[in-house]
Amino acid sequence: MHPWQALEGARVLDLAQPMRTGMPQSPNHPPFRMTLERRHGDLVRPDGGSAANELIVTGGHVGTHVDALAHVSQDGLLHGGLPAGEAMSQHGFGSLGIEEFEPYVGRCVLLDVTAVHGVHTLPPGYEITPADLSRAATGLELRPGDAVLVGTGWSRLWSSPEEFTGLRTGVPGPGAEAARWLAGHRPRLVGGESIAFEHIAPGRGHATLPVHRVLLVESGINIVETMRLAELLDSGAREFLLVLNPLPIVGATGAPVRPLAILPGEGP
Amino acid sequence: MHPWQALEGARVLDLAQPMRTGMPQSPNHPPFRMTLERRHGDLVRPDGGSAANELIVTGGHVGTHVDALAHVSQDGLLHGGLPAGEAMSQHGFGSLGIEEFEPYVGRCVLLDVTAVHGVHTLPPGYEITPADLSRAATGLELRPGDAVLVGTGWSRLWSSPEEFTGLRTGVPGPGAEAARWLAGHRPRLVGGESIAFEHIAPGRGHATLPVHRVLLVESGINIVETMRLAELLDSGAREFLLVLNPLPIVGATGAPVRPLAILPGEGP
Amino acid sequence: MHPWQALEGARVLDLAQPMRTGMPQSPNHPPFRMTLERRHGDLVRPDGGSAANELIVTGGHVGTHVDALAHVSQDGLLHGGLPAGEAMSQHGFGSLGIEEFEPYVGRCVLLDVTAVHGVHTLPPGYEITPADLSRAATGLELRPGDAVLVGTGWSRLWSSPEEFTGLRTGVPGPGAEAARWLAGHRPRLVGGESIAFEHIAPGRGHATLPVHRVLLVESGINIVETMRLAELLDSGAREFLLVLNPLPIVGATGAPVRPLAILPGEGP
Amino acid sequence: MHPWQALEGARVLDLAQPMRTGMPQSPNHPPFRMTLERRHGDLVRPDGGSAANELIVTGGHVGTHVDALAHVSQDGLLHGGLPAGEAMSQHGFGSLGIEEFEPYVGRCVLLDVTAVHGVHTLPPGYEITPADLSRAATGLELRPGDAVLVGTGWSRLWSSPEEFTGLRTGVPGPGAEAARWLAGHRPRLVGGESIAFEHIAPGRGHATLPVHRVLLVESGINIVETMRLAELLDSGAREFLLVLNPLPIVGATGAPVRPLAILPGEGP
Repeated sequence: MHPWQALEGARVLDLAQPMRTGMPQSPNHPPFRMTLERRHGDLVRPDGGSAANELIVTGGHVGTHVDALAHVSQDGLLHGGLPAGEAMSQHGFGSLGIEEFEPYVGRCVLLDVTAVHGVHTLPPGYEITPADLSRAATGLELRPGDAVLVGTGWSRLWSSPEEFTGLRTGVPGPGAEAARWLAGHRPRLVGGESIAFEHIAPGRGHATLPVHRVLLVESGINIVETMRLAELLDSGAREFLLVLNPLPIVGATGAPVRPLAILPGEGP
Repeated sequence: MHPWQALEGARVLDLAQPMRTGMPQSPNHPPFRMTLERRHGDLVRPDGGSAANELIVTGGHVGTHVDALAHVSQDGLLHGGLPAGEAMSQHGFGSLGIEEFEPYVGRCVLLDVTAVHGVHTLPPGYEITPADLSRAATGLELRPGDAVLVGTGWSRLWSSPEEFTGLRTGVPGPGAEAARWLAGHRPRLVGGESIAFEHIAPGRGHATLPVHRVLLVESGINIVETMRLAELLDSGAREFLLVLNPLPIVGATGAPVRPLAILPGEGP
Repeated sequence: MHPWQALEGARVLDLAQPMRTGMPQSPNHPPFRMTLERRHGDLVRPDGGSAANELIVTGGHVGTHVDALAHVSQDGLLHGGLPAGEAMSQHGFGSLGIEEFEPYVGRCVLLDVTAVHGVHTLPPGYEITPADLSRAATGLELRPGDAVLVGTGWSRLWSSPEEFTGLRTGVPGPGAEAARWLAGHRPRLVGGESIAFEHIAPGRGHATLPVHRVLLVESGINIVETMRLAELLDSGAREFLLVLNPLPIVGATGAPVRPLAILPGEGP
Repeated sequence: MHPWQALEGARVLDLAQPMRTGMPQSPNHPPFRMTLERRHGDLVRPDGGSAANELIVTGGHVGTHVDALAHVSQDGLLHGGLPAGEAMSQHGFGSLGIEEFEPYVGRCVLLDVTAVHGVHTLPPGYEITPADLSRAATGLELRPGDAVLVGTGWSRLWSSPEEFTGLRTGVPGPGAEAARWLAGHRPRLVGGESIAFEHIAPGRGHATLPVHRVLLVESGINIVETMRLAELLDSGAREFLLVLNPLPIVGATGAPVRPLAILPGEGP
């Protein structure tokens, strides 16, 4: 059976947040802005045709996106001990940029921490523990090379930018211990719903990013952030096909992506 | 069998061109530019961690991308007779923007016009005819709702920007007749390798865009441009699974995408 | 005596706020961002030389800037009754853009409303009245074609972005009556210290902009905003030479400027 | 006599080139782009008022602009021996950025090299020599701290971007010897009409920039480039008042400016 036949009738869930001027994002990154440059009617061809187009300004870590291994360094070194200073230039990173991330098409496991606690959305300042992840993984096999997503329900708050950003009240996410638990299963990538895949205590912002260090620098595991997992959490699916194909921006430390979860169809 | 099991061992081909400052693109659209904003070492956290990130300026029709139906109007009207003037504002298009394109995961057929002519790459000024497409489609079933790609071999010239852009020598592509042939099969989308999915005569540039009118305005069929089909052409595959998930930029007339072709694996 | 001789020993005051990422500005305009693109060492020429440069994203109404007459319309018409729709295209405005503002080198009068009230800075929600302006103009001649600046002391708050922007607490400025008083003296241009040359009531933001209508649309008088007048207010000078030369951005509705006030020197 | 009185009736010449998308500029710098973001009618306030505004992308060395001392380094060092690496961060340069350039209002001398050779515009590949400058300075006093402009007539070619940029045919300008002659007179700044104040041999581009090294790094003298001197050359004025007030972009290696030459009036 051809792959296209195997997926006929499958259910496709869009895991990306819509990108628009003013959407929630990290204050550390260039704000996303899309504006029409040419509108219909500005330039009408002799045959009555007209084309419109836009100008976009953005960061690589804006909207749903993938962190490249080049994104974080520790004591001046990138993953694998590469000196960060040697990898950077006006062309971006010569190594470990997002274009080196091979598109992922494979098994994905969703660890639903909201179900562990019987809530719809985790509270703002909650730090996810290894015990949370173990309980969420009950009955699920985690294989090396898999994708692992961690559900917090946080994507439900997308339309409330101040709450979603959580500068004052904090954001739920894994601490360093949970990151090590995840890294221990040797996944290809991990992902979550908030802006940074980290536990952010109230009022602290992104002062330290231990999860990024453990995953990107120490373990070579890419991170997907700002995913829209609400619908997937509600679907009950915990094992599915994930397609993750970030834009191949050469030398960038991250790139936007529109991830897809592919589930079995409803049947006839 | 779960979708993820069905695709284990499948072969994944990346159909996107790499995005970098200076890559070939249409002079009508904002030039792509990626620059590092923060480099490692600029801001070192007390624990020795440091993060780098970038600023990106681009158009929506730069690199491999999908045209939204809002992109082209004819006599002031968009697809379905919607007056273009009513759909546009500082937020982009309220209707027919690229975010309305539902991610495509399904069957795709490749019409290889280079094979029809026994060449590696079609000559610059060549206009693809309905007869070319019919011959390329021999033995292939084209179903309504499918994706259809047209192979010209043009993506082989990507690393020669002047040749690829073809302002002086022209670009091979379908004329209005070929567009009507394609539209007659009612595909969900069509795609090609050059900057504009059009036949461009030498020295003419994008003066008129009849194929865009036939497909986008008259038929409601999205167009994918600047695809990297060389490897797929060489693979011999003519029927495969295509994943096409452009960035959901709300109100935009187009968005970059990293399309994937998924083929059966090599086997054990 | 040559002009350069006439100004030898003169005192030059810089009336522009420094431009940097994160500075206070209107949320309605693209946020200013400056980032180094190429740094020294990225590309070293064989002779040991190296050049650094930046990428800048900005709006035209960011930092100290001049509003072009094209900036505001009333009932679809620009100054002089020009239909706004006919003047706009992908190239900006074909008429009344900022490039049509001839650089101003001439007499300027400062109406110091803080002195009228015996305060350092006017209170946030204060609306300047015609009586305030009359009192501030005591002993000063206002001639047609002059520049007139209105001092509120607001530029002293520049380093407190939230206070300066005043979204919650409001901003002092002229109301419609004061604008008519100003327009009645037929100046070439008027200027102030806050983001919008308007009285902004607490919590109202830029919901209506009557002063812009009176000055730009009805009277054809350009407005300078976000000026740094603190030092000038403190100097006691009320009549001086002003140089106002906004960047000649063709078709733009406004442009940044670094205005200079030139005062007599201290003498030997 | 007040400065504003001294300049009444003076003649003001605008020395800036108009800034628009597609204007000639160095390929090493981000291309200038101005696009309307909000147009009249997009958002009409209840009172019938509407505002339009733009989004601007640019480099600091685009259009008429001033080079900061931070722009060029030699063997890793900036002017005064400051290590370049220590001065740079995500905020730009902590020292020697363009905001440290105090606005210039003072005497300026124009050395007209076209008159020396009896031509309207110097030929593309011409290298200006110390002898040329000496002859052009005949009868003119060059004082320490003055501004010195060098006329080549090149600004007459502005409307022919390919010719003006001169990638193939070269650009006239001073060589290292002429730069040393200029530096020997210890001016505050020097300026010219082409994109780089350098002699550019045909086909060489900006491979080495000896004049920048001599002036910026060794001598601490700022450079103004892409000036529109044609009208000034034609006026016959060789000594005048120059106002040079680049935008105070904190930490930038250069900034756009609209320089003004102020000449005695025509008289009654």
